[in-house]
Amino acid sequence: MSCCHYQSAGDGFESAFTVDASRVTFGRGCLAELGDRSAALGMTRVALFSDAAVSRLEIFQTAQRSLRDAGLDVVTYTDVRVEPTDESFKQATEFAVAAKPDGYVSVGGGSVIDTAKAANLYASYPADFLEYVNAPVGAGTPVPGPLAPHIACPTTSGTGSEVTGMAIFDLLSLAAKTGIAAPALRPTEALVDPDCTDTLPSQVVACSGLDVLSHALESFTARPFTQRPAPGPGARPMSQGANPWSDLGSREAMRLLGRYLERAVRDADDREAREQTMWAATLAGIAFGNAGVHVPHAMAYAVAGQVRGFHPDGYPGSEPMVPHGMAVILNAPSVFRHTAQTDPQRHLEAAQHLGADTRGIGPEEAGAVLADDLIRIMRAVGMPNGLAAVGYTEADCGSLADGAWPQQRLLQNAPIEGDKPLLESMFRGGISYW
Amino acid sequence: MSCCHYQSAGDGFESAFTVDASRVTFGRGCLAELGDRSAALGMTRVALFSDAAVSRLEIFQTAQRSLRDAGLDVVTYTDVRVEPTDESFKQATEFAVAAKPDGYVSVGGGSVIDTAKAANLYASYPADFLEYVNAPVGAGTPVPGPLAPHIACPTTSGTGSEVTGMAIFDLLSLAAKTGIAAPALRPTEALVDPDCTDTLPSQVVACSGLDVLSHALESFTARPFTQRPAPGPGARPMSQGANPWSDLGSREAMRLLGRYLERAVRDADDREAREQTMWAATLAGIAFGNAGVHVPHAMAYAVAGQVRGFHPDGYPGSEPMVPHGMAVILNAPSVFRHTAQTDPQRHLEAAQHLGADTRGIGPEEAGAVLADDLIRIMRAVGMPNGLAAVGYTEADCGSLADGAWPQQRLLQNAPIEGDKPLLESMFRGGISYW
Repeated sequence: MSCCHYQSAGDGFESAFTVDASRVTFGRGCLAELGDRSAALGMTRVALFSDAAVSRLEIFQTAQRSLRDAGLDVVTYTDVRVEPTDESFKQATEFAVAAKPDGYVSVGGGSVIDTAKAANLYASYPADFLEYVNAPVGAGTPVPGPLAPHIACPTTSGTGSEVTGMAIFDLLSLAAKTGIAAPALRPTEALVDPDCTDTLPSQVVACSGLDVLSHALESFTARPFTQRPAPGPGARPMSQGANPWSDLGSREAMRLLGRYLERAVRDADDREAREQTMWAATLAGIAFGNAGVHVPHAMAYAVAGQVRGFHPDGYPGSEPMVPHGMAVILNAPSVFRHTAQTDPQRHLEAAQHLGADTRGIGPEEAGAVLADDLIRIMRAVGMPNGLAAVGYTEADCGSLADGAWPQQRLLQNAPIEGDKPLLESMFRGGISYW
Repeated sequence: MSCCHYQSAGDGFESAFTVDASRVTFGRGCLAELGDRSAALGMTRVALFSDAAVSRLEIFQTAQRSLRDAGLDVVTYTDVRVEPTDESFKQATEFAVAAKPDGYVSVGGGSVIDTAKAANLYASYPADFLEYVNAPVGAGTPVPGPLAPHIACPTTSGTGSEVTGMAIFDLLSLAAKTGIAAPALRPTEALVDPDCTDTLPSQVVACSGLDVLSHALESFTARPFTQRPAPGPGARPMSQGANPWSDLGSREAMRLLGRYLERAVRDADDREAREQTMWAATLAGIAFGNAGVHVPHAMAYAVAGQVRGFHPDGYPGSEPMVPHGMAVILNAPSVFRHTAQTDPQRHLEAAQHLGADTRGIGPEEAGAVLADDLIRIMRAVGMPNGLAAVGYTEADCGSLADGAWPQQRLLQNAPIEGDKPLLESMFRGGISYW
């Protein structure tokens, strides 16, 4: 195992890192603590956010009952759009402004949690919508102060949104993914109850678990924090690159996923595997919330955005879509083949955490070994064979590179400097894997 | 490495754990961020706490200058007593009440940080002193609400107080150590700057580093959270026992100390070793703040309290004292010989993290192997040879057991059920090690 000591790159470069973590309660049944915890945070009138599918589940009733049993006034908003947009964020804000809650609870996947973050923000500090959106798309204005308390209750072992200060959405006018990133957006508490994942279809567990795996792997291989120019006072970004804190969560998440993800996908009754997969999601969320992701996520936004005819098993509806985690992992082996040269030891270590035997492997083989191990896991959990299997050809790679190129916040967090031709070649490398 | 899955002990037992962590900034030079960070928390008039020795150091000037450069009004209290008492906590509170600050900054070791916590508490919510003190000594009343913001800047790589909700003191009327434990006491932020440790004498680095090592080892071997009866709503204690979160910080702290502590003690110019030792202290603080320590710490209070003639090198003054970290580690090998039977695999894993070769070792040898490795580290950093070397004899062990017995909060967090004769025999086992 590497010694993980980050040497300063010298004067003018960063020598410190800042980490935030929410209060997290983890364990089966903990959703029943929701009411008491909300009351303890001073909430009296709670805006309970969810989406149509989750609001029909027993866990939603559990949450609602817990809030009411604690004597709280509850107003529900179950119109959250999966893959939210600026329009759906605005509708949720209108609800919050009218409902005047003094606290927020989100029960759902990343879309639900992100929508509650946005509603809380714009209801607390009204502004033109683009005001707080990441530059250069928006003005990137810092959030003026603290938000109302928010308890996030994730129902997938996926996004990690419950512990990050990020809210992601599609800006319809540009047909592009962007987001709001601010420490104030981080939920006050997270209640992570593995019971919520018992009814998830296996394909959903696979896709969200591979998103988690890539959170961990991208945080672990992001440009080290010491390689970033020192920021002005108070200007250290949340996506500060790999650091000793994010390494800790990333390593453990990779180790747990290497051991449990396939089991969690294959057997919904494997309680231990589903628990550990959800714990890995929480740890990887804490890691990437403080380190940031990079190229596989930047490329994923183009893969999801330019989809033509693909629709995966296990997902509702029939419209073309590539689930986020699938869109991410399809790029990952190709990307890590390219990035391994920047720090072969670290890439080999990642492969080892995932379960590869790296004994006797030289640094020049690090990228291949890590890519091969990712491909092994993708096959084991039923991912499609590369971008071709979701409808792309070599001829699309230029357009995909154009689509990913605006994700500069992510691309600049990569360990390698890149340009559009490099992106294109990384898409080409992801067309087919076996 | 063990799989670290905690199986629920069944109905009526705990199935969840709650973890808190402060915002932490770590890295050389980060103390210069103090002023901007204090202003960002809304402070305008800062109570700056320190002790006489630290207030003469350059780092104290750095802190003061940073606060003033940020335009803050600063009132200083440098009368913190090392090893604070209820009286010294009360004096600090009187200062705070008179000074009317809207924020607190502590620059020093655990005594300074704990004193700032107490002053913040009693100035914010005045009460009879015993009101918030841990039961049964005090009433154990929960802290009524949030405190004023507090930024803690540790100057030793030791107590971890910068990330915990505990404040420890001597209650003079009972001549006993006790404390206040409440999540609200946890500092809002920690600024952990390894530059602060450059001038520490090697004996101080050794003692505080061994305190850290025992934080990690005791958290790792504490009674698992799943073995505690389920609490009522909101009543989960901070010392909830070993859990997957505390395991993560504990493992890394043990690994770093096994690799770096001896170097940090031997050579003040070994910057990497001093940095990693300080990072280990932060991680172990996060771990024990969420898991709790147990028998070695309970016994340490008696060892420090009943001292007769011993005074260590490198510590100011000449009055008899056993430094906290020394008082803890002198008990540790004897305690772990007894506790290993409860989970030999976990004790062997700990020894492995510290650097022992555990290949081929059977479970019945786990206690001996871990104890031997602790003794190896103690010798390498110049600790005395057991309790005899600080002035105790076999005849004192009954009295030491009487002194440790009231530490029930700690003793009940142990993996073994004990009684006074067992404590006495553990003291006896610590009289001499080589």
